[in-house]
Amino acid sequence: MTDLANDLLLRALLREPVERTPVWMMRQAGRYLPEYRELRARAGDFLTLCSTPDLACEITVQPIRRFPLDAAILFSDILTVPHAMGLGLYFAEGEGPRFERPVRTTRDLARLGVPDIETDLGYVTEAVRRVRRELDGRVPLIGFAGSPWTVATYCVEGGGSKNHARIKGMLYGEPALLHGLLEVLTRATTDYLNAQIAAGAQAVMVFDTWGGVLSPAAYREFSLQYMARIAQGVTRTSEGRRVPLVLFTKGAGPRLTEMADTGCDALGVDWTTDLAEARRLTADRVALQGNLDPSVLYAAPEAISREVGRVLASYGRGPGHVFNLGHGIHPDIDPANVTAMLEAVHAQSPAFHA
Amino acid sequence: MTDLANDLLLRALLREPVERTPVWMMRQAGRYLPEYRELRARAGDFLTLCSTPDLACEITVQPIRRFPLDAAILFSDILTVPHAMGLGLYFAEGEGPRFERPVRTTRDLARLGVPDIETDLGYVTEAVRRVRRELDGRVPLIGFAGSPWTVATYCVEGGGSKNHARIKGMLYGEPALLHGLLEVLTRATTDYLNAQIAAGAQAVMVFDTWGGVLSPAAYREFSLQYMARIAQGVTRTSEGRRVPLVLFTKGAGPRLTEMADTGCDALGVDWTTDLAEARRLTADRVALQGNLDPSVLYAAPEAISREVGRVLASYGRGPGHVFNLGHGIHPDIDPANVTAMLEAVHAQSPAFHA
Repeated sequence: MTDLANDLLLRALLREPVERTPVWMMRQAGRYLPEYRELRARAGDFLTLCSTPDLACEITVQPIRRFPLDAAILFSDILTVPHAMGLGLYFAEGEGPRFERPVRTTRDLARLGVPDIETDLGYVTEAVRRVRRELDGRVPLIGFAGSPWTVATYCVEGGGSKNHARIKGMLYGEPALLHGLLEVLTRATTDYLNAQIAAGAQAVMVFDTWGGVLSPAAYREFSLQYMARIAQGVTRTSEGRRVPLVLFTKGAGPRLTEMADTGCDALGVDWTTDLAEARRLTADRVALQGNLDPSVLYAAPEAISREVGRVLASYGRGPGHVFNLGHGIHPDIDPANVTAMLEAVHAQSPAFHA
Repeated sequence: MTDLANDLLLRALLREPVERTPVWMMRQAGRYLPEYRELRARAGDFLTLCSTPDLACEITVQPIRRFPLDAAILFSDILTVPHAMGLGLYFAEGEGPRFERPVRTTRDLARLGVPDIETDLGYVTEAVRRVRRELDGRVPLIGFAGSPWTVATYCVEGGGSKNHARIKGMLYGEPALLHGLLEVLTRATTDYLNAQIAAGAQAVMVFDTWGGVLSPAAYREFSLQYMARIAQGVTRTSEGRRVPLVLFTKGAGPRLTEMADTGCDALGVDWTTDLAEARRLTADRVALQGNLDPSVLYAAPEAISREVGRVLASYGRGPGHVFNLGHGIHPDIDPANVTAMLEAVHAQSPAFHA
């Protein structure tokens, strides 16, 4: 493996000193990029792109070619794990992900097994290996998975959902069944992240997109508990370096203290929590990643630069900040506005590390 | 006007002692009720129901006939105000509200005026008067309006929105234009609530459904500031009684302290914040209304009873709690489960007031 030319991300995630704040974007490989849309029109649907290592590798690297980003994140999907468990993932045009065989009964649960990663998800680990070769040490590669709770919402609902009626009915009415599902997902997710790390992922992130729809007690019992087990089970050293683990629950500002207790290295923070407040809540025990409102990128470059300055100032001086959006980049953003954001981070952040 | 047979709600909202915790539900008049669906099929579309005082009155009273609720809330919509300002509200079947003439430029804004309530929104005040006659003092009537920010999202987007791209673009790029719109909406909303109070509303609530999508700084500047002005401008005494004002921003747990500083009497709290924490943040300066996860009503009666107990215990002993859902009741809830919830509040809450 090549040494890293740019290890700002890994240092910042471990709260080590950096010269400037590293920056990447959630969903940086994807639909807002014309080269992604061109490849998708030519090469096939979303699932084909995810499950073909050459294509997943190409898409992962596209934003790195275009922008001075400090990390690549694997192009994949949080639903690869339940897909490998036999739920039958498909994408209904314009309607997002669906499962042919949702999990709603004890019998459905009994059918599920922890997948063998190299057999069932070998396309992901192969994509990781190819991306590492293609990146050739320019920037680190981030691997990821969905949190057990978030993945379970799709498994139980059978797709995306507004009210999460079925899984909430299960949570309040049949909690043992839901815990059973979360157990299997936790074991599978831990194996999956460890396989990504073994294949070359240099940091890993767990996305808990739907943890914020839970009450504090339900969040603790049905989401955080399982992310904490992943934090305990994930490989933390590879290629002689620490592999940082980032947890991200959207809408979980008030729960950052508990999240920091899991033993993760860093927390993603969305834009509804000030980084100053997040830093106070976590008492500099973890690094923080965020948190520009993704909709700032709808505005003009001067406004983007001003809002970047606010985010940097909100975190303040010292190590432990990775600049990012507070959620994924919207698909209708003009790539020129991403450039404006990156230039602002590059220009303004060194002052916070002097 | 008749004296109130049941004034539990008004006392609780003013933090006066009560024998048991009063309870009502956001969206209690609406689609989950078979009698509402029957009337709608017979009498016309949603806008016709809202704008015909006899029908709005009938729908407002329907849940009071069926359930032992402690308050009625006027059947209406938060978009009546911009509709009266000439934006041309309509409902696309299955797609929610739309405006024919959204507000996106200085010229659009210049067109808008503060409506004359008795001329342009007389159907609402007439509905209030009829509901009061129909209720005949059984329970108090709550009037309401949308917050300026929340109403503005629909005015600018032209309807509901996932990312709020247009209004966020305006917020970050043309803040003066957005403030201009919020000014007009604030004056119109204050007049509108005062007209409802003059017509007989005995408490009023401001719904800020979308304040939670803002960063803390943007929330302060574009939502809270205008709700505070409404709090200053709303009539607080009518028929010789205090008219309590309730503010509710969905997803604003961490902002409850600032919200309490507006001078409102009570705050709505969604289920993602513990009432114990909300009480600590607001230091018993205001009453709190909430906060059962509306999806608990998908579960069986025993689970509903247990979760009701958790909410009551989370608030704890003493006055100042109004039981409610943390957001509107979902349209596919079985009314029998509402009965289970109300029975649980009636059975368990007296112990917290002994």
